[in-house]
Amino acid sequence: MATQPSKTLETFPNPNPERDYEIRIQTSEFTAVCPVTGQPDFGTIIVTYVPDTLCVELKSLKLYLWSYRGEGVFHEAVTNRILDDLVAACHPRRMEVRGEFNVRGGLQTNVVARYEASGPSTGALE
Amino acid sequence: MATQPSKTLETFPNPNPERDYEIRIQTSEFTAVCPVTGQPDFGTIIVTYVPDTLCVELKSLKLYLWSYRGEGVFHEAVTNRILDDLVAACHPRRMEVRGEFNVRGGLQTNVVARYEASGPSTGALE
Amino acid sequence: MATQPSKTLETFPNPNPERDYEIRIQTSEFTAVCPVTGQPDFGTIIVTYVPDTLCVELKSLKLYLWSYRGEGVFHEAVTNRILDDLVAACHPRRMEVRGEFNVRGGLQTNVVARYEASGPSTGALE
Amino acid sequence: MATQPSKTLETFPNPNPERDYEIRIQTSEFTAVCPVTGQPDFGTIIVTYVPDTLCVELKSLKLYLWSYRGEGVFHEAVTNRILDDLVAACHPRRMEVRGEFNVRGGLQTNVVARYEASGPSTGALE
Amino acid sequence: MATQPSKTLETFPNPNPERDYEIRIQTSEFTAVCPVTGQPDFGTIIVTYVPDTLCVELKSLKLYLWSYRGEGVFHEAVTNRILDDLVAACHPRRMEVRGEFNVRGGLQTNVVARYEASGPSTGALE
Amino acid sequence: MATQPSKTLETFPNPNPERDYEIRIQTSEFTAVCPVTGQPDFGTIIVTYVPDTLCVELKSLKLYLWSYRGEGVFHEAVTNRILDDLVAACHPRRMEVRGEFNVRGGLQTNVVARYEASGPSTGALE
Amino acid sequence: MATQPSKTLETFPNPNPERDYEIRIQTSEFTAVCPVTGQPDFGTIIVTYVPDTLCVELKSLKLYLWSYRGEGVFHEAVTNRILDDLVAACHPRRMEVRGEFNVRGGLQTNVVARYEASGPSTGALE
Amino acid sequence: MATQPSKTLETFPNPNPERDYEIRIQTSEFTAVCPVTGQPDFGTIIVTYVPDTLCVELKSLKLYLWSYRGEGVFHEAVTNRILDDLVAACHPRRMEVRGEFNVRGGLQTNVVARYEASGPSTGALE
Amino acid sequence: MATQPSKTLETFPNPNPERDYEIRIQTSEFTAVCPVTGQPDFGTIIVTYVPDTLCVELKSLKLYLWSYRGEGVFHEAVTNRILDDLVAACHPRRMEVRGEFNVRGGLQTNVVARYEASGPSTGALE
Amino acid sequence: MATQPSKTLETFPNPNPERDYEIRIQTSEFTAVCPVTGQPDFGTIIVTYVPDTLCVELKSLKLYLWSYRGEGVFHEAVTNRILDDLVAACHPRRMEVRGEFNVRGGLQTNVVARYEASGPSTGALE
Repeated sequence: MATQPSKTLETFPNPNPERDYEIRIQTSEFTAVCPVTGQPDFGTIIVTYVPDTLCVELKSLKLYLWSYRGEGVFHEAVTNRILDDLVAACHPRRMEVRGEFNVRGGLQTNVVARYEASGPSTGALE
Repeated sequence: MATQPSKTLETFPNPNPERDYEIRIQTSEFTAVCPVTGQPDFGTIIVTYVPDTLCVELKSLKLYLWSYRGEGVFHEAVTNRILDDLVAACHPRRMEVRGEFNVRGGLQTNVVARYEASGPSTGALE
Repeated sequence: MATQPSKTLETFPNPNPERDYEIRIQTSEFTAVCPVTGQPDFGTIIVTYVPDTLCVELKSLKLYLWSYRGEGVFHEAVTNRILDDLVAACHPRRMEVRGEFNVRGGLQTNVVARYEASGPSTGALE
Repeated sequence: MATQPSKTLETFPNPNPERDYEIRIQTSEFTAVCPVTGQPDFGTIIVTYVPDTLCVELKSLKLYLWSYRGEGVFHEAVTNRILDDLVAACHPRRMEVRGEFNVRGGLQTNVVARYEASGPSTGALE
Repeated sequence: MATQPSKTLETFPNPNPERDYEIRIQTSEFTAVCPVTGQPDFGTIIVTYVPDTLCVELKSLKLYLWSYRGEGVFHEAVTNRILDDLVAACHPRRMEVRGEFNVRGGLQTNVVARYEASGPSTGALE
Repeated sequence: MATQPSKTLETFPNPNPERDYEIRIQTSEFTAVCPVTGQPDFGTIIVTYVPDTLCVELKSLKLYLWSYRGEGVFHEAVTNRILDDLVAACHPRRMEVRGEFNVRGGLQTNVVARYEASGPSTGALE
Repeated sequence: MATQPSKTLETFPNPNPERDYEIRIQTSEFTAVCPVTGQPDFGTIIVTYVPDTLCVELKSLKLYLWSYRGEGVFHEAVTNRILDDLVAACHPRRMEVRGEFNVRGGLQTNVVARYEASGPSTGALE
Repeated sequence: MATQPSKTLETFPNPNPERDYEIRIQTSEFTAVCPVTGQPDFGTIIVTYVPDTLCVELKSLKLYLWSYRGEGVFHEAVTNRILDDLVAACHPRRMEVRGEFNVRGGLQTNVVARYEASGPSTGALE
Repeated sequence: MATQPSKTLETFPNPNPERDYEIRIQTSEFTAVCPVTGQPDFGTIIVTYVPDTLCVELKSLKLYLWSYRGEGVFHEAVTNRILDDLVAACHPRRMEVRGEFNVRGGLQTNVVARYEASGPSTGALE
Repeated sequence: MATQPSKTLETFPNPNPERDYEIRIQTSEFTAVCPVTGQPDFGTIIVTYVPDTLCVELKSLKLYLWSYRGEGVFHEAVTNRILDDLVAACHPRRMEVRGEFNVRGGLQTNVVARYEASGPSTGALE
């Protein structure tokens, strides 16, 4: 498995698909570039999901998040895009992506997006 | 974009209007003037909302909050007014404004106001 | 407005009666006298309420709480009495009074009483 | 009132029986003896309840908890027994007893038991 | 009782089967081996359950968790397996096993699996 | 021993006068009256000392601190006066009195005064 | 005493000039204007000093710090200027002024300046 | 080794007597009896020392501290006595015993006693 | 002033060169690349110094730290290099650079390097 | 470089030997076996040192600490042995090894050993 940033997310079979259970992966090492100023942005990304038949492979998730290091992204868009990419890769029963971005201009911003396979999300995970 | 305090709130199109998701913006740098004593008041403002077609632009929100620096406002009224102004600007699906004001006379005061597009608010965000 | 302890609670018109919103006032400077031993008791009082047409005026609340400084009161009774007095003064839609009293004999005691205008309380505020 | 350990719990009339309100009493000074090894056990006991016509008198509760100092008790059994004894003494509308016991063999154990006068407990207090 | 790692979980009769109550056991001393790299993994395991007729004996739980010290296990699988083994041993009314695993490659992972005797789990314990 | 506020400090013989050792007594239950506004002031008092032949009796210290409840005192003066009274009562080898007073007008004030029997104080205790 | 911002610092006679003791005054309510961008800056100011014959009067200190609300000042210069003004007003034996300024551009800045009447400062206070 | 409370402290040879190094042992499970009221007292004991040729055996230290469970002791005396007993048992190069006792009557008390083989103690350990 | 990463550090004249005072600048937004694996590294950089005639300009420091975003550096070398570059740019009287790097392989690493104009460093700043 | 536990510590040349600077490496993932009971022990190891011509290579340090996973060691001896092995490997100017071991029998133990190339250690690092 190459250690290059990559938008490819790999998966492995859920070892316990008969049960609804939650997986939560958190990293404080997310960085991208502000599309307005071109300067680095930093934040924490927290992914929580109930897998269906596939789980997200951790190393590919690390490389996926790394791939934003040189990209210009807005907080709202990138949080939703990470959710979309993860849902497309592993088709979870439910998933939440939370981005907690560092203070800029005295303002601290969080964005929280949720997906539910069976329809509109009805509540937070965990 | 001028860096002058301003009551004008700018917006940008919600990149993901097909999904209910939450945005939370927090600043500990809110200051106004007590309308009774004329002395400075300080507090933290936390805005949480589910955007519809528009998101609040961060820099204009900073300038908007700055515009209270010289104004005499009561805690209860200013928290509701910030909510009204933000709702008028971006027409969110749901929004909450929370003001946490510094101790005065040994008393610490919080004010929390909520708006829901489809009717009376039924619960806290986040 | 005199700065003497006083059981009189003053109010002012709710600037936003069209909306249910919460006000929370906390002070760690409550002291009364133990009715059994005559010795000082200390605690924190937290008032949370949804105003109807009236809000509690902060300075009079401070003087009201000060008025217990020389009174002998039990934890359970004083928490309920503060709730009763505040409800009588401002007729809120909902209110909660929480007393957190200092350790005595190795035991720490909290008392939480709630009022709801439309009938029995169905849940905690905030 | 004697300051001897005692299994007798005293009560006093609830000053506000017309209202459902909560009383929470916490002590980090609970100690008993492990019935297997005979060695001292330590923990925190938290009692939360909605009184009906009677409240638990604090000093007698202190002496009651003290009475376990020389007794061999298991964590599960003692938490339930404290609940049973308190319910028998004051007939509350609802009550929860929570025991948080110190680490033994690298394991930390909590036990939480609840009582509701009107039937099976439907939720945690506080 | 031998102090050897063992997959055998022992139980004792629930002293209060007439009541639904919760037991929570937490240890920060869980270690296993990464099945990919062969290197040690570390984490915290938290078991919360409502016993039916049997409670899990603490010492055997310690030896059971110890038995993973030399085994190669994935985070998702081991959390579910601990839940399965504990359910098989004590047939609880409800149980939750939570694994909080240490940071690897900048990512911190939690896994939370739940069991309910009467059907699909409807909520978190505690 | 009467439970009335009293300026009288009682002592008992130091059980280990052959050794320099430190005693630290802290209370967050100090209250007096502001000599300017007449309103209550609150704070924490921390006494640290190396006893010579006498130790301060705890109950009399509690009654001594209680005696300030109705007195108008400035932060600087009361901290020094408590030090003077304690030094006069127990003639310690070294003593420090620290007053940490609650926020007033947005300002939080600490006062720390030290005494050393053998001359000017050369450093903080603890 | 007027409640207008003012660069005038008032003093009162030290009640205990025979003893070296420390006074520490902290406020998290300092705000000024960035001289480069014209935007508001926020920070915490902590003054610690050993008074000689004069103490700083608290209310005038509050009005003094308030006077920076509309001034453009650099972090380094304003911290030193507050020290100079306070030294000129009360001629302390030793004094330290510490400014802790809010994050700007991802950088958090503290400035600590010290004065000693008898020559160069040899160490931190407190 | 019997698991009975015992005033006997056992030792083992210091494995590294050629080097000055520190050992710190802390327990929050100390309890004794108040010699005035006969009621239980609780506290934390922290022993820090530089061993000479002997180290204190942990299990015997546990049994030693357990032996105070039924004894009436004053805070000052018991802290010094534990120091004396430990010094007599293991003849350390330096030792400090710190007792942090629970709040009684609103007052929290710490006692810290130190021993140095080569003469008067010159400073705190750790 | 361009907002491009740059190894050029700018300075401005120290407004108070007659006094030794400290400036401390901290950012948690440092990222570079591991020279062995090529993967991103993250950390916190804290610069503390006593300026002589020049102070470090904050924006250029931000751009300087940004310039490491694509560079492969070891923790030990980069901390020393930042110190060397800052000393060369502003010739401080004393300076300390502290790097606190994120956990890798279960190990968390800090590096602290100090410079003193008048010879070998004799102690930590702050 | 093999990923097997190993007592071999590798080094690399100090990039800045002309300067005294400190490196601090901390891991909470240390585990060994109790030589008395044969059961697992857990702890945190903190190594702080001033390198001379060699620095400790991080991966080999990880494998070195891993090598204790199956060994029976006492807290005092293992802390000193880690110090001895590290000193033998990299000949630092100064080094401190601190072991913070998990609670056993209610007692928490720390061991801190120090080395100084030029003679007896005179103080703690950091």
